[in-house]
Amino acid sequence: MSSGKILVAQGGGPTAVINQSLAGVVLEARRHQGVQRVYGARHGVRGIVDEDLVDLTRETSHNIEMVANTPASALGSTRDKPDLAYCQEIFKVLRAHAIEHFFYIGGNDSADTVRIVSEEATKAAYPLHAIHIPKTIDNDLVGNDHTPGFPSAARFVAQAFAGANLDNAALPGVYVGVVMGRHAGFLTAASALGKKFPDDGPHLIYVPERVFEVERFLADVKRTHERYGRCVIAVSEGIHDASGAPIITRLAKDIEKDAHGNVQLSGTGALADLLCEEIKQKLGIKRVRGDTFGYLQRSFVGCVSDVDAREAREVGEKAVQYAMWGGPDGATSGSVAIRRTGFYSADYELQALSDVAGKTRVMEDEFIAASGTDVTDAFRMYLRPLLGSRMPDAFRLRPNPVPKVLRR
Amino acid sequence: MSSGKILVAQGGGPTAVINQSLAGVVLEARRHQGVQRVYGARHGVRGIVDEDLVDLTRETSHNIEMVANTPASALGSTRDKPDLAYCQEIFKVLRAHAIEHFFYIGGNDSADTVRIVSEEATKAAYPLHAIHIPKTIDNDLVGNDHTPGFPSAARFVAQAFAGANLDNAALPGVYVGVVMGRHAGFLTAASALGKKFPDDGPHLIYVPERVFEVERFLADVKRTHERYGRCVIAVSEGIHDASGAPIITRLAKDIEKDAHGNVQLSGTGALADLLCEEIKQKLGIKRVRGDTFGYLQRSFVGCVSDVDAREAREVGEKAVQYAMWGGPDGATSGSVAIRRTGFYSADYELQALSDVAGKTRVMEDEFIAASGTDVTDAFRMYLRPLLGSRMPDAFRLRPNPVPKVLRR
Repeated sequence: MSSGKILVAQGGGPTAVINQSLAGVVLEARRHQGVQRVYGARHGVRGIVDEDLVDLTRETSHNIEMVANTPASALGSTRDKPDLAYCQEIFKVLRAHAIEHFFYIGGNDSADTVRIVSEEATKAAYPLHAIHIPKTIDNDLVGNDHTPGFPSAARFVAQAFAGANLDNAALPGVYVGVVMGRHAGFLTAASALGKKFPDDGPHLIYVPERVFEVERFLADVKRTHERYGRCVIAVSEGIHDASGAPIITRLAKDIEKDAHGNVQLSGTGALADLLCEEIKQKLGIKRVRGDTFGYLQRSFVGCVSDVDAREAREVGEKAVQYAMWGGPDGATSGSVAIRRTGFYSADYELQALSDVAGKTRVMEDEFIAASGTDVTDAFRMYLRPLLGSRMPDAFRLRPNPVPKVLRR
Repeated sequence: MSSGKILVAQGGGPTAVINQSLAGVVLEARRHQGVQRVYGARHGVRGIVDEDLVDLTRETSHNIEMVANTPASALGSTRDKPDLAYCQEIFKVLRAHAIEHFFYIGGNDSADTVRIVSEEATKAAYPLHAIHIPKTIDNDLVGNDHTPGFPSAARFVAQAFAGANLDNAALPGVYVGVVMGRHAGFLTAASALGKKFPDDGPHLIYVPERVFEVERFLADVKRTHERYGRCVIAVSEGIHDASGAPIITRLAKDIEKDAHGNVQLSGTGALADLLCEEIKQKLGIKRVRGDTFGYLQRSFVGCVSDVDAREAREVGEKAVQYAMWGGPDGATSGSVAIRRTGFYSADYELQALSDVAGKTRVMEDEFIAASGTDVTDAFRMYLRPLLGSRMPDAFRLRPNPVPKVLRR
């Protein structure tokens, strides 16, 4: 029989639904008779080594439900990436508090932390059940159909581009929207779901899975602008050249050579501004605007996919079930993974921590169009059900021209 | 009896509800027996002088309702600011098409256009009823309690800061969000409505109605960061120094002197990036992030205040009523204005075009706290009902610390 003590923590960048997973763990754990205490660590692994813990068995289930519907990490998060020594400190605290179930909600770095802590426990013959609960807006965890947090961020990006497209149609010009995603382009690709009519933007989508060539980019923009009289562009912050060098560095150099002096690169608006400057200078287009979606895309309150919220809750609940009752093979440690079972339906599996820890999934080739600047229908079919219900829709006036009188 | 021909157009920056006003005009006008045709001009006044008109009496009322719920300007917009000669061209087209009712949805520049066109008609003894229908996210039209479009943009800003605050609490640091508003700070001030708990951000709000001093700003940020361990800041794009010079220019110079070379100022992310750089350099704070809300705040699909949608519809409907039946004093030209009649209830009046045309309202002193970096309760009472129903709410876990074992 276990000590009945459970610890849950949240790591990495917050998401719109990460507190659903927290609620899934806490509320499911509190149903188990053997559970004596459910603790939470403040600010992820940092709070564990600092023994900065809160007792979640003293919190009402009603307030936990309200927190579940609140974005960001209610326990606080951390950017710490524990090495072996750090993980040994974590294990020391778990043992001191007789904690035998450890749940860490986070991305692939967090999975790696759970893996090392779990190995430390095994070495010490300490009965620890350690479960990684997936979370990342980047959708870059291997072995998962998708990751909780991604659908809501994708919905934000799709709604943002649907709006940017309408705005750009009303006041034509070039619009560049820079989306998060250093290695995986899923979130940038989600911009395609904001498109309804054939001439809608985003007309061009650039993901880090494809090499970005500035000259080709300018040619793409020129062609699109000539065709539609406007151009809406979605760009991953992680776009890079053939050598893997980020475009932001490359363009900074170009602009220096164009006698603009040294360009201040720090801050998040730089890539959008630099791409806009390239378009203005090289193509001579006057109305060019750039937005960097920045923290809005992961933190905006009030843009949640109901499918995402449900699944984020379920991965937390499943984590407790695996820890308490074991997976099909009896394992009580691992990483909860989402599998797609229908259109649309999902189920969960417990995969080995080593299968997901520290690895990065990128967009599959079948999701990227041959042009390299669009997504495929396979991607649209993949993403659409995840965005959830009640997606805003855009309508147009139908063309009914009035005959000219003066300029016949 | 009039010709029964009506023309409606949309000018300036799109909003989330501008098509509600369009629908208000079209659907109300189509109910009047004397109305033969309702035309729309594509891309505002530009479409009038180009005779680029569409026949809105050929559009279904069902599709007009769907368009009403779609953001941005369905007819297209323009940045053209007509002078006298341009207005004479407009009048020429109106006369050629025997249009006797002209409705222009826009800001104070649009009101001025309506005023000049109306005067041209009077000079020519042409029976034109010309009505300006208010629209602007800046909320800067005089004689109005508020303007359609502002409440929805304000709701976006409030939801964005509510989320940014949660994100910043999870991963502490300094966050700077730059909000639209060159002269009026209403939209930036709306960030205060994202605040719930006393220690929530935005902790500092800077509007163009107050002089911005970089040294004082840095002292404010330092004090707030020391107090809360974090700092969320809302800044109007229009902040300026005592001489009226935009801060972006001022900071650019400072950074040059700090040996960073020439800074590229074009593009919309520059002010946020520059303020972040100041904070990093002068205060030595490591985690400093900046977002420029850019076009998202006016174009994001799916963030509409239901109060705003209703009122935007009504100003369109009222415009037609005034044109057809006249205002209380018999006037059939003017600018529709929103008056507040209860908490919360509104009514409409027709004010003289010269009272609103070309004038700019800024935030009243009673709305800005003595500190100059916060709003008053009067502002909160003013804005809250406009944000509409179903505002997302943020909840926290209550503090229930677990006694330390290792570090007692």
